[in-house]
Amino acid sequence: MKVVKFGGSSVADANQLKKVTNIIASDHNRKVIVVSAPGKRYPDDTKTTDLLIKLGESIYNGTRDELAYDRVIERFATIVKDLKISEEILRTIQSRIDKACEHTEKDYNSGLHRLKSCGEDGTALILSAYLRSSGQEASYVNPEEAGILVRDEPGGALVLDESFDRLYELRKQKEILVIPGFFGYTPEGELVTFSRGGSDITGSIVAAGIKAELYENFTDVDSVFCVNPTIVDNPMKLTTLTYKEMRELSYAGFSVFHDEALIPAFKEKIPVCIKNTNNPDGEGTMIVSVREADEGHVKGIASDSGFLNLYVSKYLMNRELGFGRRLLQILEDEGISFEHAPSGIDDMSVIIREHQLPKAKETIVTNRIAEELKVDTITVERDMAMIMLVGEGMNETIGIASQAATAFQHANVNIEMINQGSSEVSMMFGIKSSGLEPAVRSLYRTFFL
Amino acid sequence: MKVVKFGGSSVADANQLKKVTNIIASDHNRKVIVVSAPGKRYPDDTKTTDLLIKLGESIYNGTRDELAYDRVIERFATIVKDLKISEEILRTIQSRIDKACEHTEKDYNSGLHRLKSCGEDGTALILSAYLRSSGQEASYVNPEEAGILVRDEPGGALVLDESFDRLYELRKQKEILVIPGFFGYTPEGELVTFSRGGSDITGSIVAAGIKAELYENFTDVDSVFCVNPTIVDNPMKLTTLTYKEMRELSYAGFSVFHDEALIPAFKEKIPVCIKNTNNPDGEGTMIVSVREADEGHVKGIASDSGFLNLYVSKYLMNRELGFGRRLLQILEDEGISFEHAPSGIDDMSVIIREHQLPKAKETIVTNRIAEELKVDTITVERDMAMIMLVGEGMNETIGIASQAATAFQHANVNIEMINQGSSEVSMMFGIKSSGLEPAVRSLYRTFFL
Repeated sequence: MKVVKFGGSSVADANQLKKVTNIIASDHNRKVIVVSAPGKRYPDDTKTTDLLIKLGESIYNGTRDELAYDRVIERFATIVKDLKISEEILRTIQSRIDKACEHTEKDYNSGLHRLKSCGEDGTALILSAYLRSSGQEASYVNPEEAGILVRDEPGGALVLDESFDRLYELRKQKEILVIPGFFGYTPEGELVTFSRGGSDITGSIVAAGIKAELYENFTDVDSVFCVNPTIVDNPMKLTTLTYKEMRELSYAGFSVFHDEALIPAFKEKIPVCIKNTNNPDGEGTMIVSVREADEGHVKGIASDSGFLNLYVSKYLMNRELGFGRRLLQILEDEGISFEHAPSGIDDMSVIIREHQLPKAKETIVTNRIAEELKVDTITVERDMAMIMLVGEGMNETIGIASQAATAFQHANVNIEMINQGSSEVSMMFGIKSSGLEPAVRSLYRTFFL
Repeated sequence: MKVVKFGGSSVADANQLKKVTNIIASDHNRKVIVVSAPGKRYPDDTKTTDLLIKLGESIYNGTRDELAYDRVIERFATIVKDLKISEEILRTIQSRIDKACEHTEKDYNSGLHRLKSCGEDGTALILSAYLRSSGQEASYVNPEEAGILVRDEPGGALVLDESFDRLYELRKQKEILVIPGFFGYTPEGELVTFSRGGSDITGSIVAAGIKAELYENFTDVDSVFCVNPTIVDNPMKLTTLTYKEMRELSYAGFSVFHDEALIPAFKEKIPVCIKNTNNPDGEGTMIVSVREADEGHVKGIASDSGFLNLYVSKYLMNRELGFGRRLLQILEDEGISFEHAPSGIDDMSVIIREHQLPKAKETIVTNRIAEELKVDTITVERDMAMIMLVGEGMNETIGIASQAATAFQHANVNIEMINQGSSEVSMMFGIKSSGLEPAVRSLYRTFFL
């Protein structure tokens, strides 16, 4: 039994949904389908979810954006018409959107969750109807019926453990089940959405729950690339990655997957396959729990900018029991999460994403650190980028660090920070943002050409 | 006005003390002298301080070690006789040792501090008498008279700020002052010793207090070497180092200086010169606040073994605000100080000196971490070594990381950990202890040959 998830571009219009239907029909193991909201049909198009958020925000501001509302309805109407399915579906979708709007007027936060979920929900209603009209047994299953229970958290819904046993019950169903991605329900029956890209999370949760043999994730690329294709032209495709590699790559700018999407599938050791809806016979990229032993090569290069380095120094720091802990406590008090905190003898650096520490907060934090910890120096260096080399077994391979450092040297980029050894599968380099592209290209030449 | 400190081998016998007297006489700016206890005269000899500790411990155990007592008295008696100074000096020294023994019987801890201080005190009494007998105006000054006020701390005495103003008053003295190193007094008048090697600390404190133009530290080597001479034969000598470089080098196995000895001198920006009592005309090594700009080379390679890596991994660790802080809190609760704590996305390593985490405590700590933080994996890897490259400006020099990593590769040693960027003047590598010597030799060839 396979769980198959189709992303936004795969369900962007009737033509794409026909491809989806063919993909489902071509393999009778594709029994549980998770769908995103209609995405972009062309580069300048607006995603349905973005229109719904715009609509919600306008209601909050008291000037309801009728154009956004009309564009959403129009989007679904066109798909329903082009697929020649019952107009009844469209009325159901519209009525649900209208109710979510009313709810948003009364309670913005919970209303917006409902409104945002209408894109995925509409797609699932349409696809299940179209599957039936094309002769397949299929039905729409709401995440609440399916058993996706979540807890509302500031960073987005987190799945509750009891979901998995409930989802396992879906195996009993004979027909194809179509589940909207991106949201679940609290035990009190409140709809809550996951963080952006959350349909991947739904797919992964469902695959884990029903203990799928495979979780297929259809998107609009043939495979995962080993490096950001906006920096390197035609980079190598990756045929196999491990979960750990994928997670580390996702962290620093790999946009194929939402950072945390794979965790539930990982825990059940379910293999994941990334495929292209527009080229379903292509090999794709397999993401697996364990790969057969190889020589520990670099598998991917991830990179992201927007980091800062908060640097403090204090003489005799390493004799002061609890110094590092107290510094991190100040950050925690101020609600700032940090990425890394490498320390020297009398120095400590804390790497933070820039959005976590806006200028106004920077003053508060640096003053507190200066006063409470009586440090000698405190500086904040912004505009930093992180480049991560990822590959299981890589850190046991002699010579990788040397090749990497030489690649930076050839690109004439100074390495401000190296963090190696804390992770078993990655090696991280901090540089000034201006050096990001030349460094990534040089690393690509070193490890892939 | 110069402060001059003579180490244990420089005051080991009458012959050495004559060299010391000549060194003092050759420069009329050498006005304040700090001395160690008589050290080893030959490789198998026992240092006076070790004999005094043995004596103190035997008193505590109720079986007073008369041989140790006799050896100490004999040591001083021989020096007094060979220098042909008054027997009165020897009686003063012996009476002080006898009183410290009595005190140790009543109160072991405070008595042992007194007993340990007798070596330095005796040397200072003898040297001041010998200087007078050789025609120089000189007097013994007890640290309490000099104004060295300290706080008793578990790791050894820490100097109090008010000491410096008191010491400044010594400038008014016309004659040469001889101060015993290694101890100070609390404001309540209790004698407390510094940690081992503490005569360097006394010298540094006195130099800072009297605002010396130079702090000369006479020992038995011509200069500081750029690498451990037991690993590399005839290594390069260093003519100039900065305080920061010296401090980082001291941390990982450089034994010339006690780790924290230079701090007081550093704070007053007093240059320090390391010289050889047996070759006083040699150039020595200057340690300065700021060096004239150079190209940011590697200045020294320090190395030390006896580290362990406590590794934990947990999925979604980086979404858990406060994870790192809570891990460090557990270590702090258990009284364990750590050296570094580099972290990945879902992983964190804590580098700890092995003696901080004996096997028995390891179980307590790992159980607490496993239960309280619900981690997925926790491992402890012992037998690790750290190698540190040190040099101001080095981290801004493109290519150093690459040369270093290549040197490890040539030595066929895998780099388990790299910590670069947290310190401005060093780059740290963690490896298995077995690779220490080949790696250090390879790094030496790369950066110094």
